[in-house]
Amino acid sequence: MSSTAGQVIRCKGAAVAWEAGKPLVMEEVDVAPPQAMEVRVKILFTSLCHTDVYFWEAKGQTPLFPRIFGHEAGGIVESVGEGVTELEPGDHVLPVFTGECKECRHCKSEESNMCDLLRINTDRGVMLNDGKSRFSIRGQPIYHFVGTSTFSEYTVVHVGCLAKINPAAPLDKVCVLSCGISTGLGATLNVAKPKKGSSVAIFGLGAVGLAAAEGARISGASRIIGVDLNANRFNEAKKFGVTEFVNPKDHDKPVHEVIAEMTNGGVDRSVECTGSVSAMISAFECVHDGWGVAVLVGVPNKDDAFKTHPMNVLNERTLKGTFFGNYKPRSDLPSVVEKYMNKELELEKFITHEVPFAEINKAFEYMLSGAGLRCIIKMDA
Amino acid sequence: MSSTAGQVIRCKGAAVAWEAGKPLVMEEVDVAPPQAMEVRVKILFTSLCHTDVYFWEAKGQTPLFPRIFGHEAGGIVESVGEGVTELEPGDHVLPVFTGECKECRHCKSEESNMCDLLRINTDRGVMLNDGKSRFSIRGQPIYHFVGTSTFSEYTVVHVGCLAKINPAAPLDKVCVLSCGISTGLGATLNVAKPKKGSSVAIFGLGAVGLAAAEGARISGASRIIGVDLNANRFNEAKKFGVTEFVNPKDHDKPVHEVIAEMTNGGVDRSVECTGSVSAMISAFECVHDGWGVAVLVGVPNKDDAFKTHPMNVLNERTLKGTFFGNYKPRSDLPSVVEKYMNKELELEKFITHEVPFAEINKAFEYMLSGAGLRCIIKMDA
Repeated sequence: MSSTAGQVIRCKGAAVAWEAGKPLVMEEVDVAPPQAMEVRVKILFTSLCHTDVYFWEAKGQTPLFPRIFGHEAGGIVESVGEGVTELEPGDHVLPVFTGECKECRHCKSEESNMCDLLRINTDRGVMLNDGKSRFSIRGQPIYHFVGTSTFSEYTVVHVGCLAKINPAAPLDKVCVLSCGISTGLGATLNVAKPKKGSSVAIFGLGAVGLAAAEGARISGASRIIGVDLNANRFNEAKKFGVTEFVNPKDHDKPVHEVIAEMTNGGVDRSVECTGSVSAMISAFECVHDGWGVAVLVGVPNKDDAFKTHPMNVLNERTLKGTFFGNYKPRSDLPSVVEKYMNKELELEKFITHEVPFAEINKAFEYMLSGAGLRCIIKMDA
Repeated sequence: MSSTAGQVIRCKGAAVAWEAGKPLVMEEVDVAPPQAMEVRVKILFTSLCHTDVYFWEAKGQTPLFPRIFGHEAGGIVESVGEGVTELEPGDHVLPVFTGECKECRHCKSEESNMCDLLRINTDRGVMLNDGKSRFSIRGQPIYHFVGTSTFSEYTVVHVGCLAKINPAAPLDKVCVLSCGISTGLGATLNVAKPKKGSSVAIFGLGAVGLAAAEGARISGASRIIGVDLNANRFNEAKKFGVTEFVNPKDHDKPVHEVIAEMTNGGVDRSVECTGSVSAMISAFECVHDGWGVAVLVGVPNKDDAFKTHPMNVLNERTLKGTFFGNYKPRSDLPSVVEKYMNKELELEKFITHEVPFAEINKAFEYMLSGAGLRCIIKMDA
């Protein structure tokens, strides 16, 4: 047991979002001990993902402030609550925004990772056990974010949202597997499943799309066609195995027709990582009839409609959606970490920036300006 | 070699459609010998499928008359043209409206049956080899229909559109496997693939839908929910393993919500066999998130749009289309015939009427009035 077990820890640092869209403020935060089925984790490294920015901007969502954001991270277990048997202090873990209770129909299904108990909930800012927050500043509760809140030196997470990983894995690298990189990688490896030698189109060449491309590269795809409206991304994308580029702005005809012409009728697989509904439709319509599979990853707007002629489906195309790359966080993430350890998966190329925790707002600036892919935030720097 | 090989055969009987929507007329028709890669087949039994009626009515399609319809049938090879090595006179065959050249990318793909060379073509009324018809009446060519034209005592078919089957199989039963029954059965067995004990919704309880239900029964589904606007079909459907019925007319709420309530969130699989685009959308939206698979079978109208919120996809639902139940006609149909021979698959219950060839127009009347499922037309009666 650590000396702090069962005690409130006064964190030297947590980056608190007091208001939508306003810079985070470093605060001393009290972190209560973990309750039943909860774990308190010392975060060593965290990174910034679009979803943090999206809910911090809170355009359209119910605003929930003050809040501690952050959900891509790596840390070490400090103490565990009642009933936690799978983890113990010192274990290396990745917190994940969605969980795996191992008891519900989804967890028991081989096909789903959408746990009934611990499925992502962006509106709930409290812990499941008692409906309260574990964070407070001078007694004022601070809301959690997606059950992880990793922009804090210590955080409390449900045991079902923690993947126990190889302690030899460098947390400053594998922390990016908590969300975006696994999402894109799994979309290709677990859902699109391209065969060796096949063609794959990737819509959107941000971190998630490039992770999907990395999945296609690992699968042995012979053609990886990157589609993006921003031509600046094409150079970077070559490192991820992308072999050809299509900028829809350069063409008069719809992008699915451009791709069909490049590939004698369509690609074998496509993965949509933008969230734009028109890109989703193109991603579906650009796969080959008879065997093509399109996988949607990007999160759409509330009022979007996916629309296509039913013959596009009847001609033996498949449309699938995925959530967190179909990985079950506890069962599957450890093996993704091993892919990195075996040098099958490259993570370094996703990490383009690094800042000390005190400068976390810089990470927001990089993301808002579209610079780079992932910015690692070092908690103890 | 038969004595008629290489000769024109003057058929005693062929049922010719001279005009759209007008009763077929029994005519003496000259049937030319098969050319390269063609086979002349003596048809013993044929049955009537909606697609015949659809193109005979020719509402909206390019009319192509005079024409000999018919594409569900069983027959015996009379003679073969140059280059045909897989079939010889006396072989029992099922002609199929779509073919398998065994050479193209689709035929070489394990996933597709949409042969580039011999894929269904409803507008072409002639043979591929010379762009001409093999049927004529006093020198006037009569158009073929989908390469089969089985409403004739003799017909000429591309070898790629003939499945060689077990000669012990009764052709008056297995002839229904040429089209509709295999389409529905394969949609479930080959594409939806329900697991033992799972729940399956079938939209449309005509012959194709009931064949899809038969597939669910064979797969060991524990709940088979039939959806149809015609409550008269529910009684018949029980023979096909359908356990529950939903008539959308009986409910104020959308049918996908009714099914979700019945099944604690949605069925495991659904198969859409009506061609109505609203049924297609319901069939997709009624499958469970995480693992649900919806399969579209029914052929839509030209201007239909399949429309759904992309979150329905992202929540790990799969939408697939199928054509002829994903069966490759030559490679796969013989094994479907064997399923019948092994009593795994019941065909008798699909056959509700029987008429002699001379009364073929009665079969059209049965279908137009919605009476029964399949009407077998006996050619030599």
